[in-house]
Order: sequence, then structure tokens, then C-alpha cells
Amino acid sequence: MNKWFRLFMSLALILTLVAPTVSAKENEKETKKENRLHVQIVLFDGFDLLDALGPYEVFAAAEMYSGGAVTVELVSAEGKRSVPSGLNGPALEAEAALDPNRSGIILLPGAAGKPAGTSTDSISNILGRAVKTSLAGKIKTAFENKNVTVATVCGGSLLPGMLGMLKDKYAVTNQIGMDALRSMGALAIDARVVEDNPRLVTGGGVTSGLDVALYLVERELGPQIANAVENLFEYEQRGTVWKADGLEPIDFAANP
Amino acid sequence: MNKWFRLFMSLALILTLVAPTVSAKENEKETKKENRLHVQIVLFDGFDLLDALGPYEVFAAAEMYSGGAVTVELVSAEGKRSVPSGLNGPALEAEAALDPNRSGIILLPGAAGKPAGTSTDSISNILGRAVKTSLAGKIKTAFENKNVTVATVCGGSLLPGMLGMLKDKYAVTNQIGMDALRSMGALAIDARVVEDNPRLVTGGGVTSGLDVALYLVERELGPQIANAVENLFEYEQRGTVWKADGLEPIDFAANP
Repeated sequence: MNKWFRLFMSLALILTLVAPTVSAKENEKETKKENRLHVQIVLFDGFDLLDALGPYEVFAAAEMYSGGAVTVELVSAEGKRSVPSGLNGPALEAEAALDPNRSGIILLPGAAGKPAGTSTDSISNILGRAVKTSLAGKIKTAFENKNVTVATVCGGSLLPGMLGMLKDKYAVTNQIGMDALRSMGALAIDARVVEDNPRLVTGGGVTSGLDVALYLVERELGPQIANAVENLFEYEQRGTVWKADGLEPIDFAANP
Repeated sequence: MNKWFRLFMSLALILTLVAPTVSAKENEKETKKENRLHVQIVLFDGFDLLDALGPYEVFAAAEMYSGGAVTVELVSAEGKRSVPSGLNGPALEAEAALDPNRSGIILLPGAAGKPAGTSTDSISNILGRAVKTSLAGKIKTAFENKNVTVATVCGGSLLPGMLGMLKDKYAVTNQIGMDALRSMGALAIDARVVEDNPRLVTGGGVTSGLDVALYLVERELGPQIANAVENLFEYEQRGTVWKADGLEPIDFAANP
């Protein structure tokens, strides 16, 4: 009996000593998980594969090189579902519902379709259909969330544009969509990546998605992770990220 | 009765006149279909998304701009199935079985995984598992088919390499795989795209897949289609396509 009592007391002592440590460590883990940068790549019917997967793979490689400091997932406004890409391309599985209240980055790709005209498979019609879904309300909520950076690639810039969210904002899209962007009230800038403010980063045509994602990896995780991804992909960030900072170049067209 | 007879004769006459036209047109269509360039992008468990989809989207855009002079599909050695990409990435649906007897282009992407080490999710182990499937025999058949151009991207060059198909061939792969490529007997060339002969075109790291595909579009369909795709993607072919032609630069390391 004495033996059992001593064993019990020893165990109690050990538990007393160990328990707070375990609890502290678990809290630390939780905090770390919360501090992770989370990226939601938004799929919608007719999305462009490269617009979505270029950034996806940049963030996935950054996750690998940083040991999980960033996480990335494919989402859709409707939740987990198979989402067909444009031009009769393959479908991708959205793993979860887009959560505009979750802090991190929300990236909007463009559409793959006919670059002009009004056929049902034209880019403008695919994007037009997308903003008639519940995606519209979620984009608006994301814009209002101070803990979210909205990033766009290619025609993806036209989604918030169509919703009136780019009025008087500096932004870029694919060259073929620049007039449309201006007609939505945006201040269209001819650059591969435009940062209106830290919470709104837009990209130009398809492959500029690599530059948008590498810039965000550099900004959020630092240049060493971005450089490691560049080396792995044999791609280097292209173009100055345009911001409304510093000197303004003389506009020779307006002041000849 | 007379009425029915006249109707019958009219129909017969119409059919006689119309039938040969229809048949000629269908033959024309058939010939055209046969003359189309067909591209098979090969998926295997653990493939790299961008390696496969960069070229896929270049060829898909070329299909759009050429009105169908090229067609592209995702295939797997095993046939129609959902193929998981590496690093726990999303799966893509292979639409058909890789047919190494079909003329055209067969493109082998690399794997997404740990760039070093011997864990099960290392790139070398993913590729090693791929060449233990029926893909191996199909790659060999493709190499023997004089109507097939085998193109590779990134670690995809190591698949034929592991099968001994690159012995004394000029080739490139991702920078991290160049020693492995040499150990397989290949003549490793430091370029983004290497053409050993018109039927073997290899590419470097991930994004060089865009250059491999744009080069093949230019070679097979001409510069105007390649340029249209470049403008749409806001990406321009990078790097000279290396071939064993012309003057050789002096090797100053060997002749100081």
C-alpha cells in the first residue's frame, strides 16, 4: 500500500511538473498555426488554369521551403466541388469554401476563353457569370476585411472591377482587358504587378501570376524564400511592382 | 401513288446530288483531322502541376488561335483516371491512355516533391516509382516512333534518362538534376531548351515548359501563332534553343 502511495505521489508530482509545459507548448503550436499565412486560391467555372496554378505552386513551394510558414488551398464560393476550367480544360477540385473572413491572401484568377466577342465562351461572359454567383458577396466581404490581401491575376482583376470595388484604385489586368478596367473606374497602370495598397495587389496577363505570388512571398516571408522558389522554378520576378510612391515620371504626352 | 412515286424520285435525285458532296467534305475533314498536330501531356502520380499545365495551356491557346490545327489532351499510361499531383497538390483527370503509336508530341512533365533526400516524397523517388509502371514501356515505344516528338520539362527529362534513352543525347533538366542527368550518360547542356534532334526536345526547370511549348508551337505551326500565345500570356520565349549546330564556342576552362 505504501509502495502504491509513493508511486501515486510520484506520478502526481511528475504530472504537476509536466502538465504546464505541455499546455504551454500546445499553446505555442496553436499560436504558430494562427500566425501562418494562409492563401485561398479561388476557382470558378471557366477559370484559367495557369492564372490559378502558377501562384498555387509558388505558394506550395514556399510552404515546402519555409517548413509550413504559409499554407495554400484551392477554394470555391460554393465549397468543396469539382470546378471546370475554361476552354474545355480539365477540372480542379476546390477543397473548401472561400472564407472571406479568414485572414491571409485571397487570390482571384481570370478566365480562359475567347479573348474577344460575345460568345458564351468569351472571357467577358465567363467573368460576367462568375460575378452573378455568391462569389460577388464574398469578394466584397474580403475587400472589407482588414486582415485580407486581395490579389488578382489577369482577368481576375475584372471580377472586383465589375463589382465597383476598383473605383479610383490603381490596378492592372491582361493587356486585352485594360480598356474594360478603365471603364470600371480603375486607374489602369501598365505594369506586371500593381500594389494600390498593401491589401490590393493586381497582376497583368496569365504568367504575371508568378510575379504576383513571388512578390507576396517576398513581402510576407522574406527574400530568401522567394529566391529559393525562383531557383527551383528557374523563373525570376519580372518588372517593378508599381506603387503610388516616390517621384512621378514626366508625362511627355501631356507635357510635350 | 403517283404523288409518292414523284416524291421518292425527287428525294433519290436530291440524295444522288448531295451524297458525293457530303462524302467529299467528310473526307476533307478526315484528312484535316489526321493532319492536325496532336499533343499528349503525360500525367503520373506525383507529377508537377506547372510542368504539365504550362505547356498544356500554351497548346490549348494555340488550338484556339489556329482554329484547331493542334489538339492537346492530358493522358496517363493507365488510361482515363484521376492522377494526384505531387506535394499533396490537386489531382487532374487524365482523359485517355497515352498512345505512343499516335503521331505528334508526347510531353513528359517532372515531379513535385522534396528537391533532395531519399524520403518517399522526394523528386527522385517519385520519378523512380513512375518508371516502374507501364509508363516505361510506352516511353520506349514513343522514342522508337519516328512520327513522335518526345518533349520533356524539368525532372521529366530524367524519366527517359532512367530508362537509358538519353545515352549520348544532348539534354537539359532542372539545375538540381543536372548531375543525375550526366550520370545517366546524357550530354547535359546548360540551356532552357535543348533540341538533340527534331524528335527530342528537353526543357530545364518548371517554367521552361512554357519555352518548350512555345518553341514547338513556332516550329510546327509557325511564328504567328506562337506570338499570339505570347501576347495573351504576357510571356516571351526565353533563351536560345540549343542545338548541336553552327560554330562551337571556345571552352576556356579546357583551353585556358
